[in-house]
Amino acid sequence: MTPPSRVLNPLLRERTMTAEQAAELIPNGARVGMSGFTGAGYPKAVPTALARRIEGLHAAGEPFSIGLWTGASTAPELDGALAKVGGISMRMPYQSDPTCRQQINAGQMQYVDAHLSHVAPYVWFGFWGKLDVAVIEVAGVLPDGRLIPSSSVGNNKTWLDQADRIILEVNSWQPEGLDGMHDIYYGTDLPPNRVPIPLVRPADRIGEPYLRCDPAKVVAVVATHAPDRNSAYAPPDDTSQRIAAHIIEFLQHEVAKGRLPPGLLPLQSGVGNIANAVLAGLNHGPFDHMTAYTEVLQDGMLDMLRSGKLDSASATALSLSPAATEEFTRNLDFYRERIVLRPQEISNHPELIRRLGLISMNGMIEADLYGNVNSTHVMGTSIMNGIGGSGDYARNAYLSMFLTPSLAKGGAISCIVPMASHVDHTEHDVQVIVTEQGLADLRGLSPSQRSRVVIERCAHPDFRPALRDYVARAEASGGGRHTPHLLGEALSWHERYLQTGTMRA
Amino acid sequence: MTPPSRVLNPLLRERTMTAEQAAELIPNGARVGMSGFTGAGYPKAVPTALARRIEGLHAAGEPFSIGLWTGASTAPELDGALAKVGGISMRMPYQSDPTCRQQINAGQMQYVDAHLSHVAPYVWFGFWGKLDVAVIEVAGVLPDGRLIPSSSVGNNKTWLDQADRIILEVNSWQPEGLDGMHDIYYGTDLPPNRVPIPLVRPADRIGEPYLRCDPAKVVAVVATHAPDRNSAYAPPDDTSQRIAAHIIEFLQHEVAKGRLPPGLLPLQSGVGNIANAVLAGLNHGPFDHMTAYTEVLQDGMLDMLRSGKLDSASATALSLSPAATEEFTRNLDFYRERIVLRPQEISNHPELIRRLGLISMNGMIEADLYGNVNSTHVMGTSIMNGIGGSGDYARNAYLSMFLTPSLAKGGAISCIVPMASHVDHTEHDVQVIVTEQGLADLRGLSPSQRSRVVIERCAHPDFRPALRDYVARAEASGGGRHTPHLLGEALSWHERYLQTGTMRA
Repeated sequence: MTPPSRVLNPLLRERTMTAEQAAELIPNGARVGMSGFTGAGYPKAVPTALARRIEGLHAAGEPFSIGLWTGASTAPELDGALAKVGGISMRMPYQSDPTCRQQINAGQMQYVDAHLSHVAPYVWFGFWGKLDVAVIEVAGVLPDGRLIPSSSVGNNKTWLDQADRIILEVNSWQPEGLDGMHDIYYGTDLPPNRVPIPLVRPADRIGEPYLRCDPAKVVAVVATHAPDRNSAYAPPDDTSQRIAAHIIEFLQHEVAKGRLPPGLLPLQSGVGNIANAVLAGLNHGPFDHMTAYTEVLQDGMLDMLRSGKLDSASATALSLSPAATEEFTRNLDFYRERIVLRPQEISNHPELIRRLGLISMNGMIEADLYGNVNSTHVMGTSIMNGIGGSGDYARNAYLSMFLTPSLAKGGAISCIVPMASHVDHTEHDVQVIVTEQGLADLRGLSPSQRSRVVIERCAHPDFRPALRDYVARAEASGGGRHTPHLLGEALSWHERYLQTGTMRA
Repeated sequence: MTPPSRVLNPLLRERTMTAEQAAELIPNGARVGMSGFTGAGYPKAVPTALARRIEGLHAAGEPFSIGLWTGASTAPELDGALAKVGGISMRMPYQSDPTCRQQINAGQMQYVDAHLSHVAPYVWFGFWGKLDVAVIEVAGVLPDGRLIPSSSVGNNKTWLDQADRIILEVNSWQPEGLDGMHDIYYGTDLPPNRVPIPLVRPADRIGEPYLRCDPAKVVAVVATHAPDRNSAYAPPDDTSQRIAAHIIEFLQHEVAKGRLPPGLLPLQSGVGNIANAVLAGLNHGPFDHMTAYTEVLQDGMLDMLRSGKLDSASATALSLSPAATEEFTRNLDFYRERIVLRPQEISNHPELIRRLGLISMNGMIEADLYGNVNSTHVMGTSIMNGIGGSGDYARNAYLSMFLTPSLAKGGAISCIVPMASHVDHTEHDVQVIVTEQGLADLRGLSPSQRSRVVIERCAHPDFRPALRDYVARAEASGGGRHTPHLLGEALSWHERYLQTGTMRA
């Protein structure tokens, strides 16, 4: 086969083969670390080829499945294709794929939902077993074998280091101009040999622009030319805009009180339509010379870089709409000066999040009266996506905010509930809750005080009387009044929804 | 009044007064930061004098209460005395006092139960309001006004920096030989001006032996001569010894697998009889040249230092029995070479815990089938003590273990329950659960897989059939099988206990 023109290393050029041939090199039962973070930089050909192979084997009665490890979520060509053929026995550390979700919730796929900052070290420690194969998308290969990373970095450094065999996908769709945008830090180590990570500003470059790779481990190089999973963001709706307005008003208040500098502190923002609305609000808001230190760079941050509101942004992945991708590619020289893409062990590292003092904004499924937040489970038992980096940021940020509309499912669900049906962020980690109704600042409040603020500021007015009534009866019940609850009723709103289709009585 | 002989600064000698006079300088409604961590280094005279003053004022119909901030728990002369007269309106960040607990659970005292690493920065940020007065026990005052810290450091640096007025208690009961044992780091800052903390080994000294103090802010100096709250530890019982044996066997297994070095990694241990049994086990176990990086240095660690098993220990406080105190004081030159006492923002700092790679062992109240841990609440509503540093360590440790006997209240309570009635450490943060029954290694397991291991390894045999039955029915119920639950029954064990006095059906 003709080697891809972007592969300049002679040894690796000789390893060129088809995706089908490469997929044959993955054995049944292997633990496979694939690239990919929020639909960016995932391998586009080998997973699909592997899925076809698995389908054939299963049809012939042969068992075949893998443990699939990634950076975070990927795309239908990866998670979707492999899940549809029953090819994933174990998945970690994050997914957002409908077929994976269905199989996890049916008990057919095991899922380890982990803090994203834990993944690289735990794998290095050997806590999750030996990684057998790495399948990594890159934008090119240098003559000396080093790799130009793609549109996400994720755990690629760790997968390349830890795997016995490496399969590279070289995607010529990725702009060549990505070269130089990455910063791969090789200063981490196993304890007791760890030292401080020398990053003190979001835009600092502390590593190298390329991924190191032992050419002797590379068993296949596959050429691809395929786009990332780029989907358009919905234009901000009224609910999102109201959430954004509450946040901006709060940040202005904090600046006025001297608790935040005029250019704020580095922003971290989850992904999605609410986050994009917040970023749009900040882009037209009163703050200048902002910076970002986050997981994923989405359209809103690109707009802020272009407008000059945002001086620089650090992330581990891009997640751009088709229109933003076009803009990004056209002005890569501009963006390369302002964007750094890093391994997720660095973008999500507690040491750095605590040091930088982030303003952290993440979505959630529900919060309870006392400020416990559920980010992962629907009605206590079914996984939605996963915790992702929200715990890394919420625990260590300067300001930690969780955002949600006050209602879901057309008003059948209150996102403020008596007791969260699953807890991912405890009362100790949640400072601010925001819905379109308002913002609850929980700093320095006891659980009992928090319940008042959460109900009156954040709950939808339709549900406020029932929440007030719950608290009043819990306080009068004779149970402890530190965190008043009626244990027999605490999860009854979720039960009612499951039984009747609505939390409304 | 005669100034205390240990106060060598002329200006501060002039501020000498009685505890009663000093207590008059604390106004109603003040936020007061007092020293004290786990019954060590708390002020012994001013709080009691303040309690007497409050009692008189209340008898005269005058309102008076304070917000009380400390390092962690204190003693009857502080928390107990002030709570008994209704003198504490708000308490943070940790307590273990029976009267405080009763008032918190009666809704009479507001309590903010916080991660100990969050306290110093949040106060500096201004998130919890202005600190008015600091009341700090010290072992002496240097001619230039710097302070020789006492038997705990806690948040003293922050209280001295942030308070408008300072009251010092100079306790001549504290050994003069404490001088030189402390390491006060002044390199922290507000974001965006933070830099790496240059600590890479538990015994590293990165600061100064003394607390800085602006003499102009010191409004009172009070002489005391009174012991810390030193209580004896119970000799290890059978349950504690079995828990210790499981842990040592597990650590040996990890060394054999190459996942731990032969001298382990720095130990962090909660306080109490189980912890002391584990330390006793380690003192007679197979590991040499161990180190400790922890909150509190208790008897067991002193034994390990003396035997030479432990090379060095870093903590923020001592918590010694009377016998151990005597031994410690007699051999202070030996211990000063091996012990460093630091501010709790350093002993509990996520940056350092993650870097050092601790082996973290903390007690708990209950764990559920899926590895969620409750460290703070009895039956979901009543506070016991607080989260303390357990979250700082569990989230960031190399290995994070939670320990409890499998039964409580003479067998009426199972400490392994279907659903935790309060969550302080989520499934994402709990690696290992240990009871006297056995050890559940949850690393790399999905929630469903975890439930099997937790039941079979950790639950008491009396409760295993009911737990198995719960999981089986939850899995068959049609709800999500990622984290199977029956929402109507999930907290029924706790309800049954409240109604019948036992979780047994």
